[in-house]
Amino acid sequence: MDKSLLKQLFKGIWSAQTGMKDEMDLLTAAANTPRREALERMVDAPLPFSIEAIAVEQIKENKYLLTLPHTHDEILYGLGLNFKRIDVQGSVRHLHMDHFGGEDNGRTHAPAPFLVSSQGYGMLINKARYISVYTGNTHRKEAHPPVISRMDKGWQPVYKSREIEIIIPGDGFEIILFSGPTVLDVVRRYNLFCGGGCLPPKWGLGFWHRTPSSYTAEEVEEEAKAFETRGFPLDVIGLEPGWHSCSYPTSYEWSRERFPDPKGFIERLADKKIRVNVWENPFVSPQSTLGRQLEPFSGTHTGSWGGLIPDLSIENVREMIQKQHESEHLNQGVSGYKIDECDGFDQWLWPDHAAFPSGLSGETLRQVYGVLFQRLTLDMFRRRNMRTYGLTRASNAGTTSFPYVLYNDYYSHPDFITALCSSSLCGLLWTPEARSASDAEDWLRRIQSVCFSPLAMLNAWADGTKPWSFPEVSDAVRDVMLIRMQLIPYLYSAFAQYYFEGIPPFRAMVLEPHDASDPNASIQALRRISNQYMAGPCILVAPMFAGKKERTVILPPGKWFDFYTGALAGHGPTTITITPPLERIPLFVCDGGIVPMWPEDLNAHETERLKHLEVRYYGTSDGCFEVYDDDGLTYDYEQGTYALTRLKMGRNAEGKWQGTSETVYDGMTSAYDYFNWRFMTK
Amino acid sequence: MDKSLLKQLFKGIWSAQTGMKDEMDLLTAAANTPRREALERMVDAPLPFSIEAIAVEQIKENKYLLTLPHTHDEILYGLGLNFKRIDVQGSVRHLHMDHFGGEDNGRTHAPAPFLVSSQGYGMLINKARYISVYTGNTHRKEAHPPVISRMDKGWQPVYKSREIEIIIPGDGFEIILFSGPTVLDVVRRYNLFCGGGCLPPKWGLGFWHRTPSSYTAEEVEEEAKAFETRGFPLDVIGLEPGWHSCSYPTSYEWSRERFPDPKGFIERLADKKIRVNVWENPFVSPQSTLGRQLEPFSGTHTGSWGGLIPDLSIENVREMIQKQHESEHLNQGVSGYKIDECDGFDQWLWPDHAAFPSGLSGETLRQVYGVLFQRLTLDMFRRRNMRTYGLTRASNAGTTSFPYVLYNDYYSHPDFITALCSSSLCGLLWTPEARSASDAEDWLRRIQSVCFSPLAMLNAWADGTKPWSFPEVSDAVRDVMLIRMQLIPYLYSAFAQYYFEGIPPFRAMVLEPHDASDPNASIQALRRISNQYMAGPCILVAPMFAGKKERTVILPPGKWFDFYTGALAGHGPTTITITPPLERIPLFVCDGGIVPMWPEDLNAHETERLKHLEVRYYGTSDGCFEVYDDDGLTYDYEQGTYALTRLKMGRNAEGKWQGTSETVYDGMTSAYDYFNWRFMTK
Repeated sequence: MDKSLLKQLFKGIWSAQTGMKDEMDLLTAAANTPRREALERMVDAPLPFSIEAIAVEQIKENKYLLTLPHTHDEILYGLGLNFKRIDVQGSVRHLHMDHFGGEDNGRTHAPAPFLVSSQGYGMLINKARYISVYTGNTHRKEAHPPVISRMDKGWQPVYKSREIEIIIPGDGFEIILFSGPTVLDVVRRYNLFCGGGCLPPKWGLGFWHRTPSSYTAEEVEEEAKAFETRGFPLDVIGLEPGWHSCSYPTSYEWSRERFPDPKGFIERLADKKIRVNVWENPFVSPQSTLGRQLEPFSGTHTGSWGGLIPDLSIENVREMIQKQHESEHLNQGVSGYKIDECDGFDQWLWPDHAAFPSGLSGETLRQVYGVLFQRLTLDMFRRRNMRTYGLTRASNAGTTSFPYVLYNDYYSHPDFITALCSSSLCGLLWTPEARSASDAEDWLRRIQSVCFSPLAMLNAWADGTKPWSFPEVSDAVRDVMLIRMQLIPYLYSAFAQYYFEGIPPFRAMVLEPHDASDPNASIQALRRISNQYMAGPCILVAPMFAGKKERTVILPPGKWFDFYTGALAGHGPTTITITPPLERIPLFVCDGGIVPMWPEDLNAHETERLKHLEVRYYGTSDGCFEVYDDDGLTYDYEQGTYALTRLKMGRNAEGKWQGTSETVYDGMTSAYDYFNWRFMTK
Repeated sequence: MDKSLLKQLFKGIWSAQTGMKDEMDLLTAAANTPRREALERMVDAPLPFSIEAIAVEQIKENKYLLTLPHTHDEILYGLGLNFKRIDVQGSVRHLHMDHFGGEDNGRTHAPAPFLVSSQGYGMLINKARYISVYTGNTHRKEAHPPVISRMDKGWQPVYKSREIEIIIPGDGFEIILFSGPTVLDVVRRYNLFCGGGCLPPKWGLGFWHRTPSSYTAEEVEEEAKAFETRGFPLDVIGLEPGWHSCSYPTSYEWSRERFPDPKGFIERLADKKIRVNVWENPFVSPQSTLGRQLEPFSGTHTGSWGGLIPDLSIENVREMIQKQHESEHLNQGVSGYKIDECDGFDQWLWPDHAAFPSGLSGETLRQVYGVLFQRLTLDMFRRRNMRTYGLTRASNAGTTSFPYVLYNDYYSHPDFITALCSSSLCGLLWTPEARSASDAEDWLRRIQSVCFSPLAMLNAWADGTKPWSFPEVSDAVRDVMLIRMQLIPYLYSAFAQYYFEGIPPFRAMVLEPHDASDPNASIQALRRISNQYMAGPCILVAPMFAGKKERTVILPPGKWFDFYTGALAGHGPTTITITPPLERIPLFVCDGGIVPMWPEDLNAHETERLKHLEVRYYGTSDGCFEVYDDDGLTYDYEQGTYALTRLKMGRNAEGKWQGTSETVYDGMTSAYDYFNWRFMTK
């Protein structure tokens, strides 16, 4: 690729356009504004290869072949949401919007063509088409000396590829290159380029519960009351398809039988500090008011169960849907959406040859449909200067700033944790939601995991499971839900870091500081591990899965301490084996770790009580944590209306350990006015 | 599609070409000669729709959209080898040569674009490209009245498609249409059009055993001796990769360390009436003699473990490989091949953009590579007027006459049986080979199934399992292996029917006579059932899977009798529940069923003993069976050198039941000269 094609966009970010530009590409669909200032604050770094090392060739049938160098030790990450492993090299990925089918092959809920290399660079292919990525599994004949293996004992054929080959259909494409030097730097640059991480409203970090599909308003309110009576936290109630006057296909209008007074219903819940999120899919009933309007603007085919497929690339179409949603949902007090089914399960979506009024192909619209629908809803909330937080089953690259969390119907607990790790490498969020369980242990272990994720939710739409459905673990379930609530100041600050610095709040271990060239086995293992992850700056989460009494945990460099007791757990880099009790999800805090916590409460609403923070301090080294605060509800923080309080632990003038707090930014007054320091490590 | 495009090829078979013809299509690759006379003997039938009902439209990027009508009750079959179910409607299949990945999505070992409809027609898309078939899961907006579902109790949204939509890439394509009226008629026409079913050599129907990869000649001979000593039948020994001087990539030359005297080794086994089959894949070591010759005729990329990929579409290349194979293998006495790995596992094969000297695309070569390699080997054997029988992991449409049986590395016993059923709907053969087992029960159940399949094989290449590895079931394993041997005259006659009439020897229940419009639940269920099947004209096989003590069996119309006891099992159409003993695979024979059997023997070689047949007769109605015989080794049967003996059971002049035999065709003298009738039903 000729050097002249390369245009520097920001420090460490370059773009190169080959051939023609598409009317609709991934970045157009997401329509984000890069966070220029934050990008400029990052360290500069070159790409690990010259741009001439990238080869571009036009091949048959309107396709391009893009070839990048691949080195022997290189580990590749990214390429969207994956469930089996986080490293993607040595495989073929046909990036295609779809429900995950049990195999990491590119068909997934967020088939983002964003590749991250351990060599210290990332590449986004900004193209809304089906792209095939051969991640170091192809072998060009001329590039390889012949390798001969005999069938001897211990025989293990090894044959390393020297190239990454990518097939991109269409008349042209844009690549965006991100430099490192570390994998975290690459991911941060990408996230900041995509507008910075989303900052959910504070209530979004509380506990969510989705009620069964056919519940009436009365039944939902009873369920909410049961949470309160039993002392289980609850911030958001999610309504499933049955709230529609008809589904499927969906009308987006309230079922007046089940919800005779939506506004009153939502207000009564709001009085209890509980918000309402509603399920929808984009496949419109042709008999609904909206359906009649959208008919001429819909595709040649229908989607799930006969619903019209509105062409969301047309502004007028988005406006029609927004207008209806504003009046029927937002004006009634709905706080956000769960956007279902635009990923596919393949046979439920429109076929590739479906035609749409805008002239966009079925393929292009499929790749970005979930993104367009997310944006449509976000625009409404932004106009009201109101943050939202919700769920989506379909997304793609470019959506780092979208307050939508991915989920699906797959339901493997271990693979859900891999997905959580994998999401952090592509600017995505993932929730390992709990729905049901085979037994009490499984239930508790799943609830524990979801409480350490971007969205802590029980989705009981089909099974009607309650947090207390397994009485023998009911107390332990409540305990971890309450810990989640207490951690909101900590997690909210971590999300602020996502927005301001592009650091994922929940992230794969490879994003922690380490020396990749260190041959230490634990260091090498943490570059691929996907059954443990970081939550916020200093907590390492090592979920337990039902049926297991023990597990290993890789501790990165430095000392690590038990979250609950403050005791030393190990000195990394090392791998420890633990046998945790059923009631506790294993959590470890790094040396000098500071964890600000709310008192126990059932909602994330600001009250007098919640002004007082307990500040846990772990270890034996100096520590520092910046507690972020803002109004928790609006976008005013983007204009500087927020506060940062620096909590520090260190020796004072007399040589005694002392915790101090200091306002370091006061765009507003922080809610937190009292810090109760607690030395966890004795 | 305009009527003028339609050309009648044979009775009930039409072709229509749209746009340009490809240099390489599926039928060119298979290069078969239709069995004209057999086709002309079939009943005539029209297509169930007018050709104008098929719509063809050119769509973007060099693709065609083909649309066929789809009716409410229509069941669709075919589309290659499937593992989860035999009916394919309501899904999307992206037909793509690959290893089966756990989901029926079109990626499979034989992604044949041959669709069979219960409406009484079949369609082959004669195109070696990746074809996407939407089998009645798409919904054209204008074709559908809106359907509204409410979330009421028992809510079950139903939304039936009215079209089959198919995307075919390229400049043109040919479809071949086959009429019925029954599903069996469609399949028979297709099979006869593809040259008629293969007739294996008689020894091919005996028992096969593949020895561990690193065995030496000595170890193989010891293993063969162990079979004899212990009284287990053995007709073919299969050698795995370790016989090569190097693998991987493969040299096709003998390892002189392990096999110092290949010819002597093969002759010694031949003396024991055991043949040798050798494993290979098509990825050539560049350091072997053949590799050096083939280098300039290979693709831009290498295949599995760095092997060159010869362009098999070039005649000269095929000849080079044949010449080497003739001298190194056939001249040494090798009886046939196992052709591995040309299906892919995706990341092991060449990428789609790989270029080949012939100019064919990586995609086209991938779709037919297994077919071309099969044909290359078959040509050698045919030139010697010697039949072969072997295994392949990659095939496609058009190969009905190829004596190659599909297998893979997936290893789900129940799904292997579904594959066996599915294969019969596309002119393919499948073996549920046994490799290893979790316990004795699993071992016995797997061996029982494989003994009722086209190729009865223990593939111990990796695990080294012996038939007697589980002592507690060792006798029962031997018993079913011996039954397999005894059934060879019966199975050989069934294969003759495959050749002469196109009737699959092992087939899905839907291919048995039934009235599809009969609402009887058992009749409707047999149209989709895939855990039982027919072996030959009159035996119904209902395999048992480990862990199950009972199962249901659907009996088609008429009375059915227990194979072992002759007792009445039920009167179909009905569904019965059975609790068979561990030692017996459930087998049922239809009323009037006649089963000619050899005496127990360890090899399928002709001897004096094997001239005497035991003829089992079941039930209470007249019966008839034509025993086929020929030399068992050559292609002379194609010129009429075979014999047919009609065995009949009926009342004689005195009203007594009597079995009779009559020579009905005597192109040669049948080996069978004595028939010992045995009334099984008392």
